[in-house]
Amino acid sequence: MKMMLPIIIFMISCLLFSFSSSLSGRDFCVADFNSPFGPAGYSCKNPQMVNVEDFSSSGILNAPIIDNLLKTGESTAFVDKIPGLNGQRVSLARVDVQPGGVVPLHSHSDATEVLAVLQGSMIAGFISSNNTVYVKSIGPGGVIVFPRGLLHFQVNSGINLSVGIAAYSSPQPNIQIVDDALFKSNLSTLLISASTFINPIEVKRLKLLFRGSG
Amino acid sequence: MKMMLPIIIFMISCLLFSFSSSLSGRDFCVADFNSPFGPAGYSCKNPQMVNVEDFSSSGILNAPIIDNLLKTGESTAFVDKIPGLNGQRVSLARVDVQPGGVVPLHSHSDATEVLAVLQGSMIAGFISSNNTVYVKSIGPGGVIVFPRGLLHFQVNSGINLSVGIAAYSSPQPNIQIVDDALFKSNLSTLLISASTFINPIEVKRLKLLFRGSG
Amino acid sequence: MKMMLPIIIFMISCLLFSFSSSLSGRDFCVADFNSPFGPAGYSCKNPQMVNVEDFSSSGILNAPIIDNLLKTGESTAFVDKIPGLNGQRVSLARVDVQPGGVVPLHSHSDATEVLAVLQGSMIAGFISSNNTVYVKSIGPGGVIVFPRGLLHFQVNSGINLSVGIAAYSSPQPNIQIVDDALFKSNLSTLLISASTFINPIEVKRLKLLFRGSG
Amino acid sequence: MKMMLPIIIFMISCLLFSFSSSLSGRDFCVADFNSPFGPAGYSCKNPQMVNVEDFSSSGILNAPIIDNLLKTGESTAFVDKIPGLNGQRVSLARVDVQPGGVVPLHSHSDATEVLAVLQGSMIAGFISSNNTVYVKSIGPGGVIVFPRGLLHFQVNSGINLSVGIAAYSSPQPNIQIVDDALFKSNLSTLLISASTFINPIEVKRLKLLFRGSG
Amino acid sequence: MKMMLPIIIFMISCLLFSFSSSLSGRDFCVADFNSPFGPAGYSCKNPQMVNVEDFSSSGILNAPIIDNLLKTGESTAFVDKIPGLNGQRVSLARVDVQPGGVVPLHSHSDATEVLAVLQGSMIAGFISSNNTVYVKSIGPGGVIVFPRGLLHFQVNSGINLSVGIAAYSSPQPNIQIVDDALFKSNLSTLLISASTFINPIEVKRLKLLFRGSG
Amino acid sequence: MKMMLPIIIFMISCLLFSFSSSLSGRDFCVADFNSPFGPAGYSCKNPQMVNVEDFSSSGILNAPIIDNLLKTGESTAFVDKIPGLNGQRVSLARVDVQPGGVVPLHSHSDATEVLAVLQGSMIAGFISSNNTVYVKSIGPGGVIVFPRGLLHFQVNSGINLSVGIAAYSSPQPNIQIVDDALFKSNLSTLLISASTFINPIEVKRLKLLFRGSG
Repeated sequence: MKMMLPIIIFMISCLLFSFSSSLSGRDFCVADFNSPFGPAGYSCKNPQMVNVEDFSSSGILNAPIIDNLLKTGESTAFVDKIPGLNGQRVSLARVDVQPGGVVPLHSHSDATEVLAVLQGSMIAGFISSNNTVYVKSIGPGGVIVFPRGLLHFQVNSGINLSVGIAAYSSPQPNIQIVDDALFKSNLSTLLISASTFINPIEVKRLKLLFRGSG
Repeated sequence: MKMMLPIIIFMISCLLFSFSSSLSGRDFCVADFNSPFGPAGYSCKNPQMVNVEDFSSSGILNAPIIDNLLKTGESTAFVDKIPGLNGQRVSLARVDVQPGGVVPLHSHSDATEVLAVLQGSMIAGFISSNNTVYVKSIGPGGVIVFPRGLLHFQVNSGINLSVGIAAYSSPQPNIQIVDDALFKSNLSTLLISASTFINPIEVKRLKLLFRGSG
Repeated sequence: MKMMLPIIIFMISCLLFSFSSSLSGRDFCVADFNSPFGPAGYSCKNPQMVNVEDFSSSGILNAPIIDNLLKTGESTAFVDKIPGLNGQRVSLARVDVQPGGVVPLHSHSDATEVLAVLQGSMIAGFISSNNTVYVKSIGPGGVIVFPRGLLHFQVNSGINLSVGIAAYSSPQPNIQIVDDALFKSNLSTLLISASTFINPIEVKRLKLLFRGSG
Repeated sequence: MKMMLPIIIFMISCLLFSFSSSLSGRDFCVADFNSPFGPAGYSCKNPQMVNVEDFSSSGILNAPIIDNLLKTGESTAFVDKIPGLNGQRVSLARVDVQPGGVVPLHSHSDATEVLAVLQGSMIAGFISSNNTVYVKSIGPGGVIVFPRGLLHFQVNSGINLSVGIAAYSSPQPNIQIVDDALFKSNLSTLLISASTFINPIEVKRLKLLFRGSG
Repeated sequence: MKMMLPIIIFMISCLLFSFSSSLSGRDFCVADFNSPFGPAGYSCKNPQMVNVEDFSSSGILNAPIIDNLLKTGESTAFVDKIPGLNGQRVSLARVDVQPGGVVPLHSHSDATEVLAVLQGSMIAGFISSNNTVYVKSIGPGGVIVFPRGLLHFQVNSGINLSVGIAAYSSPQPNIQIVDDALFKSNLSTLLISASTFINPIEVKRLKLLFRGSG
Repeated sequence: MKMMLPIIIFMISCLLFSFSSSLSGRDFCVADFNSPFGPAGYSCKNPQMVNVEDFSSSGILNAPIIDNLLKTGESTAFVDKIPGLNGQRVSLARVDVQPGGVVPLHSHSDATEVLAVLQGSMIAGFISSNNTVYVKSIGPGGVIVFPRGLLHFQVNSGINLSVGIAAYSSPQPNIQIVDDALFKSNLSTLLISASTFINPIEVKRLKLLFRGSG
């Protein structure tokens, strides 16, 4: 008898959900992480349950943890942490690069990036699909655009920490790092070498460095 | 005879333009400010003429000039200054608000905004179309989202300068400030009062403050 | 034993749902108000359960109820009433404005509006983000466009009822009325006055009129 | 000497155009019919030259001229007449169907239609791609949706004029009438008959009726 | 007691689902056919459960079964068979047309088609909405584009089998065949004849051929 | 006197262009390669000047020229050769891979690819942004999807020529080959090595192979 209870609660909550949603407008669609998500993003939280905390976060862009190998760290304000970004085509991140540090060659398949340097300086560059290189040293107050899907990188060749803020045209930009794709994955040395022409010995050295298998 | 020269140059440049464009891919579409623009943005510059300066700008987000009335200033990195942002759905701005300063009630019809506070603090808020208020005090490292098209504002109720970086989901977000729309325009006091229920005397006072006519 | 029944029915209906959906094309996506909705709209009803009633409604655009303060009323044919509009970027409404009536200053963050006057006349206007006013008197058979996200209004300065039909580029346009956002909400008089420069005494008068708190 | 004049004027106007456009926001993009148009619509008119007439038109939805064969007429408020609709995804039309009249089987490849009946009644219907028929009689105040790209029709089986207003999710919906495509074109009787299985004799009769050739 | 088990499993799987999804990026959204789908497509499968089989299929474009009446067959690689196509705007099909065979007059409301002929030849054509006919004989290695939503057809007037590969700008293009819409459905002879001007006797003959009712 | 002639012709053609365009619908937008192009594609050719040749091409997907290093060749049916693809989100290519040949690691920033194998077999794979490898051997009639923007490759490990047809969700997909970006460009060995951790000696070897400078 009492076993029906959770089912009934579930059905009532379904009804409530549909009622509220059919009454509300479309100002925003705050992510409900417990519901299915689709090509356009997460399902929307019941607007009655939404509050300002869904749209904001304290200290989320404070100084990030620094990676030992890359001497770089990133704090992100993406939809997984700020559900109010769901369905919006924008997000922010902070990137700190120590002297000698690098944001290695990578691309964002679904986002253009605009990087502003707040402190220190970075050599930043991207490469177009006809193999033209666009590279520049960016200092405080300077800005550079990395068009969607193109390979790009940053290095700190200075002697001070450099700090940047990056805006993305996606609520959760994916990041495909070439080194990780090849040398942190389980892609076989044979296929890596065949598809990149990198010497198998060098491939194996890099697999050790990035902890890949295969 | 020599008069034909500019026409010939024009035609040749047209041909060159079309040739190069038909050969090149679609990595980006850098704005050509001397060509027509349409609903999707400016026409694309000949890719042969594009260089890294089209994607970057030095010092563009340095401290802005402060408005006397609002005690607020904004530096923008929008497509009108960074042609490489053309056709991309993202841009950046820096906003400085002095103690007692305000970014008055406004909306961006074509952009969601994500605001990160770098220094000081701001009380920031937006109102949904069912008249719910979402307001919060944001400090350094904190972030708030203003969903597209909704009225929002910021005030600095502290005693120090506050500085923020805003990302927009548009290469050139428009900004409709309610006060300016009503009191800086030439909309008649009669129509303002009829459509807002604000007392005509108050309307006239605000018109003086914002220098409107009508 | 029989308690398993609802669960089994649920599972069977899930299967049926997925089967039918994987077989059917994508002619339309009729809203299923009992399922989650996301940034692109409601989930789709099982196409087997769809009929012409999902796409139509009798008398939905008949004369609306008139608001006492505004002397205006609106009938809407939006997706909440016509589930076949789900995922489509269009809807209709009828607006009746009595002599002396007003559709107060408002914006639709996600929709452009095209208003046709069927009967009587309206003074209709919108304001662009550079504070230019576009205003015109529209009579029967006349049409005016209100671009997406811009503040606009209508008043009936005539002596007869005016009736209009509005098309929107959204299945459920939201409506942000400036007066309601400020004076029907719980935004504090302090913040309203700070962010709009309207005299606090006037703010309080308008809060009384629109029944706001705060 | 004076021959340089038109060229100089052209160049100056180019400069003015680019200046004004780089300064203005993106509230709207009013069609400039004398400039190139692309996949997203017409080029934008210089915002300095835009006025309220670009967004409105008097009497544009007055009673249309009636076609003899179909006993139907249509007045349209599309972007070709209202340049302010450029780049917006919405437009309006009025359709008058006399008793015995018909809006023959057709589709709009780029627009969903919402039809409201103002006067009289219409039998309206559409067919989905799995050959299900959705048909209904619509009276005053009633509404029906025709999903994008699907074949649909209206007939007036009553004894009074019926009048409807249609909203489209396109600024210039195209209209492909099956009869016209087959019998008003120069498609050969052989190919028509092969691709539709309609008897060649019937094809020829219909070609006479619709004045096709081939 | 054990009856709670399926519910608990359900809840745990919900949690797992939400956790993994909030951690993963947005490289793709593989269709989960057991979850709701919306205007943008199916819900996404838990990325942890995705493997290469979701993106591929062996022999899916092998020779299709041939329809007796049309002497034509089609193999499809659409999202219903390849879940990795979900949310992507592309798919493939193979079409075999025997001598004397026909792909009858039809349209795809949501997809442009590019057809490449691999073997044999086809007379292929489409008709624009101003009733212009674009028709051509395509041989091996040749290509023709059918713009979205326009009526088109193919016939094999040769003596050999013709084979083509078609790409669509949709993961699951719908196909509206005019003959099927009219003569395989239950639309009444009266309404067919009224909306197409085809002789009722011919309508009835075609209904017999295509097995329609009504 | 006669010098005015080209100017007059130019003006008349402008007028004709605008007239015809304002009269015509929006069935398609055939590329005019002599006009500006923007973020959404090329400007549209005057519809009066369009014919079936704009939508088709004979033999365009015949066997391609084979590259010596890669033992691979590609024939493309992209918008630069088929102007009717302008503004459509689809195109086709044929790829031939000889035994031992490779389509090296690359990505398409603006297109998802669906590859069908017609003849022989290919080992095809892609890597997601969390470094999971999806790899499979595809034979005749088999299909694999490469999601937009992700790194992917194909190798022919068999003893026969393999032939595939690829559909793209773009009219002109760009192709960023990692090797070319790094080793065919003028990116300095220092920056390559810093941003990829590849040994400078190996970088220099690969620069020789791919003919890069810098």
